[in-house]
Amino acid sequence: MTEPQKSANIVHKKNRLEAFSDGVFAIAITLLVLEIAVPAVRDSSTETLRDLGHEWPVYLAYFVSFMTIGAVWIEHSALVDALDHIDGVFMRLNLVLLLFCAFLPFPTRMMSEWASHVAAERVAVVFYGIVLLVMTLMLMVLGRHAEREGLFGDDMVDERKEEARVKYQLTPSLIAYVVAAILGFLSPRLGISLYLLIAIYLAIPLRDIRKMLRKGA
Amino acid sequence: MTEPQKSANIVHKKNRLEAFSDGVFAIAITLLVLEIAVPAVRDSSTETLRDLGHEWPVYLAYFVSFMTIGAVWIEHSALVDALDHIDGVFMRLNLVLLLFCAFLPFPTRMMSEWASHVAAERVAVVFYGIVLLVMTLMLMVLGRHAEREGLFGDDMVDERKEEARVKYQLTPSLIAYVVAAILGFLSPRLGISLYLLIAIYLAIPLRDIRKMLRKGA
Amino acid sequence: MTEPQKSANIVHKKNRLEAFSDGVFAIAITLLVLEIAVPAVRDSSTETLRDLGHEWPVYLAYFVSFMTIGAVWIEHSALVDALDHIDGVFMRLNLVLLLFCAFLPFPTRMMSEWASHVAAERVAVVFYGIVLLVMTLMLMVLGRHAEREGLFGDDMVDERKEEARVKYQLTPSLIAYVVAAILGFLSPRLGISLYLLIAIYLAIPLRDIRKMLRKGA
Amino acid sequence: MTEPQKSANIVHKKNRLEAFSDGVFAIAITLLVLEIAVPAVRDSSTETLRDLGHEWPVYLAYFVSFMTIGAVWIEHSALVDALDHIDGVFMRLNLVLLLFCAFLPFPTRMMSEWASHVAAERVAVVFYGIVLLVMTLMLMVLGRHAEREGLFGDDMVDERKEEARVKYQLTPSLIAYVVAAILGFLSPRLGISLYLLIAIYLAIPLRDIRKMLRKGA
Repeated sequence: MTEPQKSANIVHKKNRLEAFSDGVFAIAITLLVLEIAVPAVRDSSTETLRDLGHEWPVYLAYFVSFMTIGAVWIEHSALVDALDHIDGVFMRLNLVLLLFCAFLPFPTRMMSEWASHVAAERVAVVFYGIVLLVMTLMLMVLGRHAEREGLFGDDMVDERKEEARVKYQLTPSLIAYVVAAILGFLSPRLGISLYLLIAIYLAIPLRDIRKMLRKGA
Repeated sequence: MTEPQKSANIVHKKNRLEAFSDGVFAIAITLLVLEIAVPAVRDSSTETLRDLGHEWPVYLAYFVSFMTIGAVWIEHSALVDALDHIDGVFMRLNLVLLLFCAFLPFPTRMMSEWASHVAAERVAVVFYGIVLLVMTLMLMVLGRHAEREGLFGDDMVDERKEEARVKYQLTPSLIAYVVAAILGFLSPRLGISLYLLIAIYLAIPLRDIRKMLRKGA
Repeated sequence: MTEPQKSANIVHKKNRLEAFSDGVFAIAITLLVLEIAVPAVRDSSTETLRDLGHEWPVYLAYFVSFMTIGAVWIEHSALVDALDHIDGVFMRLNLVLLLFCAFLPFPTRMMSEWASHVAAERVAVVFYGIVLLVMTLMLMVLGRHAEREGLFGDDMVDERKEEARVKYQLTPSLIAYVVAAILGFLSPRLGISLYLLIAIYLAIPLRDIRKMLRKGA
Repeated sequence: MTEPQKSANIVHKKNRLEAFSDGVFAIAITLLVLEIAVPAVRDSSTETLRDLGHEWPVYLAYFVSFMTIGAVWIEHSALVDALDHIDGVFMRLNLVLLLFCAFLPFPTRMMSEWASHVAAERVAVVFYGIVLLVMTLMLMVLGRHAEREGLFGDDMVDERKEEARVKYQLTPSLIAYVVAAILGFLSPRLGISLYLLIAIYLAIPLRDIRKMLRKGA
């Protein structure tokens, strides 16, 4: 709406990037449920319940993938919200982030199907971890690109600083993913538990908590 | 757009939460159709028709799930509409609501596949009821959080009261889900019929009816 | 934004109805492709091509379903565009329209799978026609409800008249669906060809053509 | 918002076309992952890794389809962004573009399933190339229609010229698709590699690069 924005040809509107990204995030997060298989029919309710219980690694993989995409979506919306405008490179980098988000149902299914075979599960956990790692990495790349190219609004200096704090939250998660993938190769169940912890950590509303603490002080 | 909103870092824009939620609701509601299997080919039209007729519990499960997600979406849009702004905690609670909505195609498929085995159907009906219960519960949690944190707009006092009325509509449905799940364990067909009634009850436009009655008075 | 709109509790914002409906239309139209099966591998390119060619009823069913949902989406967006506001009943009626749109991939798959068995195809063509009929019917019901409840904007009198013209386009299609379903029971291939013609007829931009003719006159 | 726009009946709002198109693009791009099959479980991690490695044509087809839809989406959003308004014919032509985008998962799956049979792969590569070609062609048709009907905004003269430049980027890709499909019939692997190169070429942010060069000069 501002003058310089209108004249610049490289300025694309944010709305469609948001709509398209929200679409991909929403679909990827909802497709995950297709990977969960209904167990075969049993003659007693107790056996049926036990079969459902045995599927817990499948539910865990579903939950981890859901929470990770959810956390990435939250960070993504906070980042794009703080931007004044976007450029063509941002759109392409964003597409790479979406590529890995949309790909996540594949390693999730892999984890579910190979859950009971340690040798295969090992590979699945590392593969899965790499995809999660790249998703977080791409979020950081997007943030850095926005900062370097001055895509943040001038009246968003506070938000930009806030954005820097987001990166503090992302950086340890990158290291944690590497550690979790290595440990996951040795002990798959440990690996996936760590992925769950990272997803929960990423989903903690640090900004709000800090805000509340500041209010209280 | 108001001054206090701009300065508060915890204020996120509502648009993306709405777009993302609408995406998940729309996908979950549309994926349900994938769970319906086409019966095997028959040599006569009469047999084909009979086969289709035998699938009625599948259509019923489809219909109940569709109406429940639809009713939840209507309540969700009424709630978010009445909000002035949202905070980070609201975004996370919303994510949990979406988690259960996106998960619903799984118990729906379970109900379809186990429809002809009472022992397994028993488990499916209770499992399904719990997911429906948690969806409604999360809607209430979202409403309570919004009220406690003052997320409703100041000019929306009427809407806030209206929102309280929404909760009157939600509370009996919570109790009804518990009753329906217990009865559903004893008689699965009764259980799913009750879920249908609750979905229809949730979808009744009470607000509009009250409005019309007031107009008429 | 106008005063009366703010005070009325029954007024819901159109945006979310549009976003949710667009989501369901877009997903239903895109899920159709999952119903098309890749033929088994063959040793020669000629045989592979012939196998692909034999699948033509599948492509035709895909195309008819795609064009019908597309045409319904175009009419839906023209209708909602002309509305000043929506009420709760409109939201529920809209949900019923979406129910049948989201259901369409099922009869589409049925048509594909039963394409080579006349007795079963007969049933599929009638079943499919009924779903198409109800979709068009619900569009009319939505238009009538909007008119009766005065949901059109006051400055949209022209649009309202335009809307009436839309209904002229819908009414013959309803009759055509009944005729096509009856003929389809006798000759399935004839039935699906008629559905295709109706979809093409619905997709003709009558408004624009009339506009152009008026310009030329 | 301008006076002439309001009075013209043929003017439809762009928002819903964007929302619906974004939905279809986002779903088509995300459904691609369903085509990737998880290999059977193996007893050793090395064999599992090798099986995953053997699937490379599947990943390549996934990547090419993802990048092509992504590039088409970027061009589509640049085009619609530059428009002042749209007409009914634009909506129908857009629907045809979406038809081929939504159809892309089918030839993608075909390429994956026939990857190890040269005779069938030959057919798949040509079939796939034709769909990619039509997608690009429809983008050009949309651009030409917009130009001929004066759908670009008056204050968007620069954008319109920019749009012409987009077409310079599209035209060579059309020729490249024809060449790639012919070569792909002779050598399938060469064909798909060329499709990848075209997708990368389409995704290059030429506008931004030109802008940067102009800045530097």
